[in-house]
Amino acid sequence: MSSSYGGYRPQSQYAPSAPQQPPYSSYYQTSTSNVPPPSNSSSNYSYSNVSSSGYPSFPPGTPQDVITSFQMVDRDRSGFIDERELQQALSSGFHRFNLRTIRLLMFLFKNPHQPLAVGPKEFAALWSCLGQWRGIFERYDKDRSGKIDPLELRDALYGIGYAVPGSVLQLLLSKYGDGSGRRVELCFDNFVECGMIIKGLTDKFKEKDTRYTGSATLSYDAFMTMVLPFLVSYD
Amino acid sequence: MSSSYGGYRPQSQYAPSAPQQPPYSSYYQTSTSNVPPPSNSSSNYSYSNVSSSGYPSFPPGTPQDVITSFQMVDRDRSGFIDERELQQALSSGFHRFNLRTIRLLMFLFKNPHQPLAVGPKEFAALWSCLGQWRGIFERYDKDRSGKIDPLELRDALYGIGYAVPGSVLQLLLSKYGDGSGRRVELCFDNFVECGMIIKGLTDKFKEKDTRYTGSATLSYDAFMTMVLPFLVSYD
Repeated sequence: MSSSYGGYRPQSQYAPSAPQQPPYSSYYQTSTSNVPPPSNSSSNYSYSNVSSSGYPSFPPGTPQDVITSFQMVDRDRSGFIDERELQQALSSGFHRFNLRTIRLLMFLFKNPHQPLAVGPKEFAALWSCLGQWRGIFERYDKDRSGKIDPLELRDALYGIGYAVPGSVLQLLLSKYGDGSGRRVELCFDNFVECGMIIKGLTDKFKEKDTRYTGSATLSYDAFMTMVLPFLVSYD
Repeated sequence: MSSSYGGYRPQSQYAPSAPQQPPYSSYYQTSTSNVPPPSNSSSNYSYSNVSSSGYPSFPPGTPQDVITSFQMVDRDRSGFIDERELQQALSSGFHRFNLRTIRLLMFLFKNPHQPLAVGPKEFAALWSCLGQWRGIFERYDKDRSGKIDPLELRDALYGIGYAVPGSVLQLLLSKYGDGSGRRVELCFDNFVECGMIIKGLTDKFKEKDTRYTGSATLSYDAFMTMVLPFLVSYD
Protein backbone atom coordinates (compact mmCIF):
# COMPACT_ATOMS: atom_id res chain seq x y z
CA MET A 1 0.00 0.00 0.00
CA SER A 2 2.53 2.50 1.17
CA SER A 3 4.89 2.13 -1.75
CA SER A 4 2.29 2.98 -4.36
CA TYR A 5 0.62 5.78 -2.38
CA GLY A 6 0.90 9.13 -4.07
CA GLY A 7 1.32 7.61 -7.50
CA TYR A 8 4.86 6.59 -6.62
CA ARG A 9 6.44 3.67 -8.30
CA PRO A 10 9.99 2.43 -8.11
CA GLN A 11 12.66 4.68 -9.51
CA SER A 12 13.39 2.46 -12.49
CA GLN A 13 9.83 2.68 -13.79
CA TYR A 14 8.87 6.33 -13.62
CA ALA A 15 9.94 9.44 -15.41
CA PRO A 16 10.51 12.17 -12.82
CA SER A 17 9.44 14.85 -15.27
CA ALA A 18 6.07 13.27 -15.92
CA PRO A 19 4.78 11.42 -12.90
CA GLN A 20 1.33 9.99 -12.69
CA GLN A 21 -1.34 12.01 -11.01
CA PRO A 22 -2.46 10.49 -7.73
CA PRO A 23 -5.46 8.25 -8.36
CA TYR A 24 -7.46 9.62 -5.41
CA SER A 25 -8.14 12.73 -3.44
CA SER A 26 -6.73 12.62 0.02
CA TYR A 27 -6.31 14.45 3.25
CA TYR A 28 -2.54 14.24 2.99
CA GLN A 29 -1.79 14.58 -0.66
CA THR A 30 -1.35 18.21 -1.55
CA SER A 31 -2.89 19.56 -4.70
CA THR A 32 0.33 20.97 -6.10
CA SER A 33 2.20 17.71 -5.82
CA ASN A 34 4.12 17.00 -8.96
CA VAL A 35 6.96 14.88 -7.65
CA PRO A 36 6.63 11.37 -6.32
CA PRO A 37 8.23 11.16 -2.89
CA PRO A 38 11.38 9.13 -2.45
CA SER A 39 10.69 5.64 -1.24
CA ASN A 40 11.87 4.84 2.27
CA SER A 41 12.62 1.23 1.50
CA SER A 42 14.18 -1.09 -0.96
CA SER A 43 11.21 -3.43 -1.08
CA ASN A 44 10.17 -2.61 -4.62
CA TYR A 45 13.23 -4.00 -6.24
CA SER A 46 13.14 -7.43 -7.74
CA TYR A 47 16.10 -9.18 -9.24
CA SER A 48 18.47 -12.01 -8.68
CA ASN A 49 20.32 -11.46 -5.42
CA VAL A 50 23.45 -13.39 -6.08
CA SER A 51 25.64 -13.34 -9.16
CA SER A 52 27.23 -16.42 -10.65
CA SER A 53 30.44 -15.56 -8.76
CA GLY A 54 28.60 -15.78 -5.45
CA TYR A 55 29.06 -12.03 -4.79
CA PRO A 56 25.68 -10.37 -4.22
CA SER A 57 24.78 -8.50 -7.38
CA PHE A 58 23.42 -5.03 -8.02
CA PRO A 59 20.01 -4.48 -9.59
CA PRO A 60 20.13 -4.25 -13.40
CA GLY A 61 20.75 -0.69 -14.51
CA THR A 62 22.62 0.38 -11.37
CA PRO A 63 24.98 3.19 -12.43
CA GLN A 64 28.67 2.31 -12.38
CA ASP A 65 29.56 5.06 -9.90
CA VAL A 66 27.14 3.53 -7.38
CA ILE A 67 28.74 0.11 -7.80
CA THR A 68 32.21 1.60 -7.51
CA SER A 69 31.31 3.53 -4.36
CA PHE A 70 30.11 0.33 -2.73
CA GLN A 71 33.02 -1.83 -3.82
CA MET A 72 35.59 0.76 -2.73
CA VAL A 73 34.50 0.37 0.89
CA ASP A 74 33.69 -3.35 0.84
CA ARG A 75 37.35 -4.23 1.26
CA ASP A 76 36.80 -7.81 2.39
CA ARG A 77 34.53 -8.44 -0.61
CA SER A 78 31.86 -9.86 1.68
CA GLY A 79 29.10 -8.18 -0.28
CA PHE A 80 27.96 -6.30 2.82
CA ILE A 81 29.05 -3.06 4.43
CA ASP A 82 28.60 -1.78 7.96
CA GLU A 83 27.52 1.65 9.14
CA ARG A 84 30.92 3.33 9.00
CA GLU A 85 31.60 1.89 5.55
CA LEU A 86 28.19 3.14 4.44
CA GLN A 87 29.03 6.58 5.79
CA GLN A 88 32.23 6.52 3.76
CA ALA A 89 30.59 5.16 0.60
CA LEU A 90 27.85 7.78 0.62
CA SER A 91 30.29 10.61 1.21
CA SER A 92 31.70 10.05 -2.27
CA GLY A 93 28.36 10.90 -3.85
CA PHE A 94 26.49 13.03 -1.37
CA HIS A 95 27.60 14.21 2.00
CA ARG A 96 29.36 12.92 5.06
CA PHE A 97 26.17 12.05 6.91
CA ASN A 98 26.30 11.87 10.68
CA LEU A 99 26.03 8.38 12.13
CA ARG A 100 22.53 9.05 13.43
CA THR A 101 21.25 9.64 9.91
CA ILE A 102 23.27 6.64 8.68
CA ARG A 103 21.59 4.42 11.27
CA LEU A 104 18.14 5.69 10.36
CA LEU A 105 18.90 5.01 6.69
CA MET A 106 20.17 1.54 7.53
CA PHE A 107 17.11 0.80 9.60
CA LEU A 108 14.71 1.97 6.91
CA PHE A 109 16.52 0.20 4.07
CA LYS A 110 17.56 -2.91 5.92
CA ASN A 111 17.47 -6.36 4.50
CA PRO A 112 15.33 -8.34 6.96
CA HIS A 113 17.77 -11.25 6.70
CA GLN A 114 20.84 -9.08 7.31
CA PRO A 115 19.49 -6.21 9.38
CA LEU A 116 22.84 -4.80 10.45
CA ALA A 117 24.58 -4.76 7.10
CA VAL A 118 23.85 -3.15 3.75
CA GLY A 119 24.14 -5.21 0.59
CA PRO A 120 24.17 -4.08 -3.06
CA LYS A 121 20.40 -4.12 -3.37
CA GLU A 122 19.85 -1.94 -0.31
CA PHE A 123 22.74 0.32 -1.29
CA ALA A 124 21.37 0.93 -4.77
CA ALA A 125 17.92 1.71 -3.40
CA LEU A 126 19.37 4.01 -0.78
CA TRP A 127 21.54 5.85 -3.29
CA SER A 128 18.58 6.34 -5.60
CA CYS A 129 16.45 7.62 -2.72
CA LEU A 130 19.15 10.07 -1.63
CA GLY A 131 19.44 11.29 -5.20
CA GLN A 132 15.75 12.12 -5.12
CA TRP A 133 16.07 13.91 -1.77
CA ARG A 134 19.00 15.90 -3.15
CA GLY A 135 16.91 16.96 -6.12
CA ILE A 136 14.20 18.13 -3.77
CA PHE A 137 16.70 19.93 -1.54
CA GLU A 138 18.16 21.82 -4.48
CA ARG A 139 14.75 22.68 -5.89
CA TYR A 140 13.49 24.16 -2.60
CA ASP A 141 16.67 25.84 -1.44
CA LYS A 142 15.52 28.85 -3.42
CA ASP A 143 18.12 31.26 -2.11
CA ARG A 144 20.92 28.73 -2.82
CA SER A 145 22.15 29.04 0.74
CA GLY A 146 22.93 25.33 1.03
CA LYS A 147 20.43 25.25 3.88
CA ILE A 148 16.70 24.65 4.03
CA ASP A 149 14.78 27.01 6.29
CA PRO A 150 11.43 26.13 7.91
CA LEU A 151 9.33 27.63 5.12
CA GLU A 152 11.39 25.90 2.44
CA LEU A 153 11.03 22.61 4.35
CA ARG A 154 7.27 23.04 4.51
CA ASP A 155 7.17 23.79 0.78
CA ALA A 156 9.45 20.85 -0.04
CA LEU A 157 7.30 18.39 1.91
CA TYR A 158 4.18 19.92 0.38
CA GLY A 159 5.71 19.54 -3.05
CA ILE A 160 6.14 15.79 -2.60
CA GLY A 161 2.66 15.35 -1.20
CA TYR A 162 2.92 15.91 2.53
CA ALA A 163 0.88 18.79 3.88
CA VAL A 164 2.41 18.81 7.35
CA PRO A 165 0.77 21.15 9.90
CA GLY A 166 2.98 24.03 11.06
CA SER A 167 2.79 22.89 14.69
CA VAL A 168 4.13 19.45 13.75
CA LEU A 169 7.01 20.91 11.76
CA GLN A 170 7.82 23.28 14.59
CA LEU A 171 8.00 20.36 17.02
CA LEU A 172 10.30 18.46 14.69
CA LEU A 173 12.54 21.46 14.02
CA SER A 174 12.86 22.17 17.75
CA LYS A 175 15.06 19.06 17.82
CA TYR A 176 17.58 20.70 15.52
CA GLY A 177 18.09 24.03 17.27
CA ASP A 178 21.47 25.00 18.66
CA GLY A 179 19.98 26.40 21.84
CA SER A 180 20.35 30.02 20.77
CA GLY A 181 16.71 30.40 19.82
CA ARG A 182 17.69 31.38 16.29
CA ARG A 183 15.67 30.12 13.35
CA VAL A 184 16.65 26.55 12.53
CA GLU A 185 18.18 25.88 9.14
CA LEU A 186 18.77 22.35 7.94
CA CYS A 187 21.80 21.13 6.07
CA PHE A 188 21.25 18.29 3.59
CA ASP A 189 22.01 15.70 6.28
CA ASN A 190 19.33 16.91 8.69
CA PHE A 191 16.96 17.62 5.80
CA VAL A 192 17.17 13.97 4.77
CA GLU A 193 16.62 12.86 8.35
CA CYS A 194 13.57 15.15 8.77
CA GLY A 195 12.19 14.14 5.41
CA MET A 196 12.60 10.43 6.11
CA ILE A 197 10.93 10.78 9.50
CA ILE A 198 7.95 12.79 8.20
CA LYS A 199 7.53 10.62 5.12
CA GLY A 200 8.04 7.38 7.04
CA LEU A 201 5.66 8.13 9.88
CA THR A 202 3.05 9.64 7.57
CA ASP A 203 3.16 6.66 5.23
CA LYS A 204 2.78 4.29 8.17
CA PHE A 205 -0.18 6.28 9.43
CA LYS A 206 -1.79 6.38 5.99
CA GLU A 207 -1.63 2.59 5.78
CA LYS A 208 -4.03 2.57 8.73
CA ASP A 209 -6.17 5.41 7.39
CA THR A 210 -7.46 3.49 4.43
CA ARG A 211 -10.28 5.92 3.69
CA TYR A 212 -8.04 9.00 3.89
CA THR A 213 -10.12 10.70 6.54
CA GLY A 214 -7.16 12.12 8.43
CA SER A 215 -7.61 9.82 11.39
CA ALA A 216 -6.96 6.18 12.09
CA THR A 217 -7.75 3.59 14.74
CA LEU A 218 -4.62 1.86 15.97
CA SER A 219 -4.05 -0.95 18.40
CA TYR A 220 -1.41 -0.30 21.05
CA ASP A 221 0.87 -2.91 19.48
CA ALA A 222 0.48 -1.44 16.01
CA PHE A 223 1.15 2.05 17.35
CA MET A 224 4.35 1.02 19.09
CA THR A 225 5.52 -1.04 16.11
CA MET A 226 4.96 1.90 13.77
CA VAL A 227 6.82 4.37 15.91
CA LEU A 228 9.81 2.58 17.41
CA PRO A 229 11.79 2.20 14.15
CA PHE A 230 12.07 5.99 13.99
CA LEU A 231 13.42 6.41 17.49
CA VAL A 232 16.97 6.90 18.60
CA SER A 233 19.49 4.34 17.53
CA TYR A 234 22.15 2.55 19.46
CA ASP A 235 25.45 4.22 20.30
CA MET B 1 -4.80 12.15 33.04
CA SER B 2 -1.47 10.62 32.30
CA SER B 3 0.15 11.53 35.58
CA SER B 4 -2.46 9.81 37.74
CA TYR B 5 -2.78 6.71 35.55
CA GLY B 6 -1.71 3.59 37.36
CA GLY B 7 -2.40 5.08 40.76
CA TYR B 8 0.69 7.23 40.42
CA ARG B 9 0.96 10.41 42.36
CA PRO B 10 3.91 12.75 42.71
CA GLN B 11 6.90 11.44 44.63
CA SER B 12 6.38 13.68 47.63
CA GLN B 13 2.91 12.30 48.32
CA TYR B 14 3.23 8.54 48.10
CA ALA B 15 4.94 5.89 50.13
CA PRO B 16 6.82 3.59 47.73
CA SER B 17 6.27 0.62 50.00
CA ALA B 18 2.51 0.99 50.10
CA PRO B 19 1.19 2.43 46.88
CA GLN B 20 -2.49 2.62 46.06
CA GLN B 21 -3.99 -0.11 43.98
CA PRO B 22 -4.97 1.09 40.55
CA PRO B 23 -8.58 2.22 40.61
CA TYR B 24 -9.55 0.38 37.43
CA SER B 25 -8.85 -2.68 35.42
CA SER B 26 -7.04 -2.04 32.19
CA TYR B 27 -5.52 -3.54 29.13
CA TYR B 28 -2.12 -2.11 29.97
CA GLN B 29 -1.93 -2.26 33.72
CA THR B 30 -0.48 -5.58 34.76
CA SER B 31 -2.04 -7.46 37.64
CA THR B 32 1.19 -7.77 39.58
CA SER B 33 1.93 -4.09 39.52
CA ASN B 34 2.97 -2.88 42.93
CA VAL B 35 5.15 0.07 42.09
CA PRO B 36 3.94 3.33 40.62
CA PRO B 37 5.95 4.15 37.52
CA PRO B 38 8.27 7.14 37.54
CA SER B 39 6.67 10.24 36.13
CA ASN B 40 8.12 11.48 32.84
CA SER B 41 7.49 15.12 33.62
CA SER B 42 7.76 17.77 36.25
CA SER B 43 4.19 18.98 35.79
CA ASN B 44 2.90 17.73 39.12
CA TYR B 45 5.01 20.04 41.20
CA SER B 46 3.53 23.20 42.52
CA TYR B 47 5.46 25.79 44.48
CA SER B 48 6.83 29.25 44.27
CA ASN B 49 9.27 29.44 41.37
CA VAL B 50 11.50 32.27 42.49
CA SER B 51 13.04 32.86 45.89
CA SER B 52 13.22 36.27 47.50
CA SER B 53 16.82 36.57 46.24
CA GLY B 54 15.64 36.24 42.64
CA TYR B 55 17.37 32.88 42.17
CA PRO B 56 14.87 30.20 41.13
CA SER B 57 14.13 28.07 44.16
CA PHE B 58 13.91 24.32 44.64
CA PRO B 59 10.66 22.64 45.64
CA PRO B 60 10.18 22.36 49.42
CA GLY B 61 11.75 19.18 50.71
CA THR B 62 14.37 18.85 47.96
CA PRO B 63 17.33 16.95 49.48
CA GLN B 64 20.46 19.00 50.02
CA ASP B 65 22.62 16.76 47.81
CA VAL B 66 20.29 17.48 44.87
CA ILE B 67 20.56 21.22 45.45
CA THR B 68 24.33 20.96 45.79
CA SER B 69 24.67 18.94 42.59
CA PHE B 70 22.77 21.62 40.71
CA GLN B 71 24.58 24.57 42.19
CA MET B 72 27.99 23.00 41.62
CA VAL B 73 27.46 23.12 37.86
CA ASP B 74 25.49 26.37 37.68
CA ARG B 75 28.66 28.40 37.86
CA ASP B 76 27.18 31.64 36.54
CA ARG B 77 24.35 31.41 39.10
CA SER B 78 21.80 31.95 36.35
CA GLY B 79 19.46 29.39 37.88
CA PHE B 80 19.52 27.33 34.69
CA ILE B 81 21.86 24.68 33.38
CA ASP B 82 22.45 23.42 29.86
CA GLU B 83 22.77 19.86 28.61
CA ARG B 84 26.46 19.39 29.37
CA GLU B 85 26.04 20.87 32.83
CA LEU B 86 23.09 18.54 33.40
CA GLN B 87 25.22 15.59 32.30
CA GLN B 88 27.85 16.63 34.84
CA ALA B 89 25.35 17.29 37.64
CA LEU B 90 23.66 13.92 37.24
CA SER B 91 26.95 12.06 37.13
CA SER B 92 27.50 12.95 40.79
CA GLY B 93 24.41 11.00 41.81
CA PHE B 94 23.79 8.48 39.09
CA HIS B 95 25.77 7.82 36.00
CA ARG B 96 27.48 9.71 33.24
CA PHE B 97 24.54 9.55 30.87
CA ASN B 98 25.23 9.86 27.18
CA LEU B 99 24.08 13.11 25.60
CA ARG B 100 21.25 11.38 23.76
CA THR B 101 19.66 10.30 27.03
CA ILE B 102 20.35 13.75 28.50
CA ARG B 103 18.50 15.36 25.60
CA LEU B 104 15.56 13.01 25.96
CA LEU B 105 15.42 13.80 29.68
CA MET B 106 15.62 17.51 28.96
CA PHE B 107 12.88 17.27 26.39
CA LEU B 108 10.57 15.30 28.67
CA PHE B 109 11.21 17.47 31.72
CA LYS B 110 11.47 20.79 29.99
CA ASN B 111 10.01 23.98 31.29
CA PRO B 112 7.81 25.22 28.44
CA HIS B 113 9.08 28.76 29.01
CA GLN B 114 12.75 27.74 28.99
CA PRO B 115 12.79 24.63 26.79
CA LEU B 116 16.54 24.46 26.37
CA ALA B 117 17.59 24.89 29.96
CA VAL B 118 16.88 23.03 33.16
CA GLY B 119 15.94 24.99 36.28
CA PRO B 120 15.73 23.81 39.93
CA LYS B 121 12.16 22.61 39.58
CA GLU B 122 12.88 20.45 36.56
CA PHE B 123 16.14 19.24 38.03
CA ALA B 124 14.50 18.10 41.28
CA ALA B 125 11.76 16.27 39.37
CA LEU B 126 14.30 14.65 37.09
CA TRP B 127 16.50 13.56 39.98
CA SER B 128 13.53 12.06 41.78
CA CYS B 129 12.45 10.23 38.62
CA LEU B 130 15.95 8.83 38.06
CA GLY B 131 16.03 7.66 41.66
CA GLN B 132 12.88 5.68 41.00
CA TRP B 133 14.32 4.20 37.81
CA ARG B 134 17.47 3.25 39.69
CA GLY B 135 15.40 1.46 42.32
CA ILE B 136 13.62 -0.47 39.57
CA PHE B 137 16.90 -1.26 37.84
CA GLU B 138 18.40 -2.66 41.03
CA ARG B 139 15.28 -4.65 41.88
CA TYR B 140 15.12 -6.36 38.49
CA ASP B 141 18.84 -6.84 37.90
CA LYS B 142 18.42 -10.11 39.74
CA ASP B 143 21.86 -11.51 38.96
CA ARG B 144 23.50 -8.21 40.04
CA SER B 145 25.32 -8.00 36.74
CA GLY B 146 24.90 -4.23 36.50
CA LYS B 147 23.02 -4.88 33.27
CA ILE B 148 19.39 -5.55 32.50
CA ASP B 149 18.76 -8.33 30.01
CA PRO B 150 15.61 -8.56 27.82
CA LEU B 151 13.69 -10.74 30.27
CA GLU B 152 14.60 -8.52 33.20
CA LEU B 153 13.50 -5.48 31.17
CA ARG B 154 10.17 -7.11 30.40
CA ASP B 155 9.69 -7.96 34.09
CA ALA B 156 10.72 -4.48 35.19
CA LEU B 157 8.24 -2.82 32.84
CA TYR B 158 5.58 -5.32 33.86
CA GLY B 159 6.29 -4.57 37.50
CA ILE B 160 5.54 -0.87 37.04
CA GLY B 161 2.40 -1.55 35.07
CA TYR B 162 3.44 -1.88 31.44
CA ALA B 163 2.73 -5.25 29.84
CA VAL B 164 4.73 -4.64 26.66
CA PRO B 165 4.42 -7.31 23.96
CA GLY B 166 7.61 -9.25 23.25
CA SER B 167 7.67 -8.15 19.62
CA VAL B 168 7.61 -4.49 20.67
CA LEU B 169 10.44 -4.97 23.17
CA GLN B 170 12.45 -6.85 20.57
CA LEU B 171 12.07 -3.97 18.13
CA LEU B 172 13.18 -1.48 20.74
CA LEU B 173 16.13 -3.60 21.86
CA SER B 174 17.30 -4.06 18.27
CA LYS B 175 18.33 -0.39 18.47
CA TYR B 176 20.83 -1.17 21.20
CA GLY B 177 22.68 -4.09 19.66
CA ASP B 178 26.37 -3.88 18.86
CA GLY B 179 25.93 -5.59 15.54
CA SER B 180 27.30 -8.93 16.72
CA GLY B 181 23.86 -10.48 17.10
CA ARG B 182 24.54 -11.21 20.76
CA ARG B 183 21.75 -10.76 23.28
CA VAL B 184 21.39 -7.10 24.15
CA GLU B 185 22.02 -6.07 27.74
CA LEU B 186 21.21 -2.59 28.91
CA CYS B 187 23.32 -0.48 31.24
CA PHE B 188 21.46 1.94 33.50
CA ASP B 189 21.77 4.72 30.91
CA ASN B 190 20.07 2.76 28.13
CA PHE B 191 17.61 1.22 30.59
CA VAL B 192 16.44 4.71 31.54
CA GLU B 193 16.16 5.68 27.89
CA CYS B 194 14.14 2.54 27.03
CA GLY B 195 11.97 2.93 30.09
CA MET B 196 11.25 6.58 29.36
CA ILE B 197 10.37 5.80 25.76
CA ILE B 198 8.05 2.90 26.60
CA LYS B 199 6.42 4.71 29.49
CA GLY B 200 6.16 8.00 27.62
CA LEU B 201 4.66 6.58 24.43
CA THR B 202 2.34 4.22 26.32
CA ASP B 203 1.07 7.01 28.56
CA LYS B 204 0.43 9.20 25.53
CA PHE B 205 -1.45 6.39 23.85
CA LYS B 206 -3.50 5.67 26.95
CA GLU B 207 -4.62 9.29 27.09
CA LYS B 208 -6.37 8.62 23.78
CA ASP B 209 -7.64 5.19 24.81
CA THR B 210 -9.99 6.51 27.45
CA ARG B 211 -11.94 3.26 27.77
CA TYR B 212 -8.81 1.09 28.05
CA THR B 213 -9.73 -1.12 25.13
CA GLY B 214 -6.20 -1.44 23.81
CA SER B 215 -6.87 0.68 20.74
CA ALA B 216 -7.34 4.34 20.07
CA THR B 217 -8.48 6.60 17.26
CA LEU B 218 -5.93 9.29 16.51
CA SER B 219 -5.93 12.19 14.13
CA TYR B 220 -2.81 12.53 12.00
CA ASP B 221 -1.81 15.70 13.85
CA ALA B 222 -2.27 14.07 17.25
CA PHE B 223 -0.27 11.04 16.14
CA MET B 224 2.66 13.11 14.94
CA THR B 225 2.56 15.36 18.00
CA MET B 226 2.61 12.32 20.29
CA VAL B 227 5.52 10.69 18.57
CA LEU B 228 7.96 13.42 17.55
CA PRO B 229 9.11 14.33 21.09
CA PHE B 230 10.59 10.85 21.40
CA LEU B 231 12.59 11.05 18.21
CA VAL B 232 16.26 11.73 17.78
CA SER B 233 17.57 14.98 19.12
CA TYR B 234 19.76 17.63 17.59
CA ASP B 235 23.51 17.14 17.35
